[in-house]
Amino acid sequence: MAVALDEARAGLAEGGVPIGAALYGADGALLGRGHNRRVQDGDPSAHAETDAFRAAGRQRSYRGTTMVTTLSPCWYCSGLVRQFGIARVVVGEARTFHGGHDWLAEHGVEVLVLDDPDCAALMREFVERNPALWNEDIGDD
Amino acid sequence: MAVALDEARAGLAEGGVPIGAALYGADGALLGRGHNRRVQDGDPSAHAETDAFRAAGRQRSYRGTTMVTTLSPCWYCSGLVRQFGIARVVVGEARTFHGGHDWLAEHGVEVLVLDDPDCAALMREFVERNPALWNEDIGDD
Repeated sequence: MAVALDEARAGLAEGGVPIGAALYGADGALLGRGHNRRVQDGDPSAHAETDAFRAAGRQRSYRGTTMVTTLSPCWYCSGLVRQFGIARVVVGEARTFHGGHDWLAEHGVEVLVLDDPDCAALMREFVERNPALWNEDIGDD
Repeated sequence: MAVALDEARAGLAEGGVPIGAALYGADGALLGRGHNRRVQDGDPSAHAETDAFRAAGRQRSYRGTTMVTTLSPCWYCSGLVRQFGIARVVVGEARTFHGGHDWLAEHGVEVLVLDDPDCAALMREFVERNPALWNEDIGDD
């Protein structure tokens, strides 16, 4: 979670939505890391998990891989995990936003929710200060 | 569907996976169009629907929008539609691949499957010639 949290903080420092993620191979090697880039790149498709997935480049298989993310993955990022057969998702916290991690667990993905206070504090403060931007990021109008 | 099919054919001409998509606003205006860019950009996150969504840039709301895609959307792209509240999905065909469009319909998205023979022929020929690439694109190992 340290890498994902570093990514989230980097995103915040750039003026963006502070969510970070990292994708690890079955052997524990880091394949890709990233963070939300909606603001920085004007790219609504760059959620933390998709940014880490993209950074990992083309992979023949996602068997045994683990996605670590500071926040419960939204439906878009949950769909990514399910489609590509990512084996495990480690979620920093699901207090400030409850995405699709229960659905992933129902469909055979190993899900671990850490309820990490640093991840939760980062998002709580961000959402309090930037409610419109946060709502835009999750398509909530 | 003409725009999405043009995108799919452009992708094929570039040596890529021939799936195209276009996102339209509630007023019918084209917001963004795109195609799968796994091969061209080495980007596994660039499915047709996410590429069109990205091309549309930041939007405050997706209320009333329509995603037109040549192929049934995979879980990743179905998750995109659900998360952002895209109202309607027009699917070229679901014969060569059956993604998450039933799930979207269950969750209130208006889904129209055209069963278009041009869309189906394009994918069928591609999958026959490039089974490994197609399996990679949908995370099937």
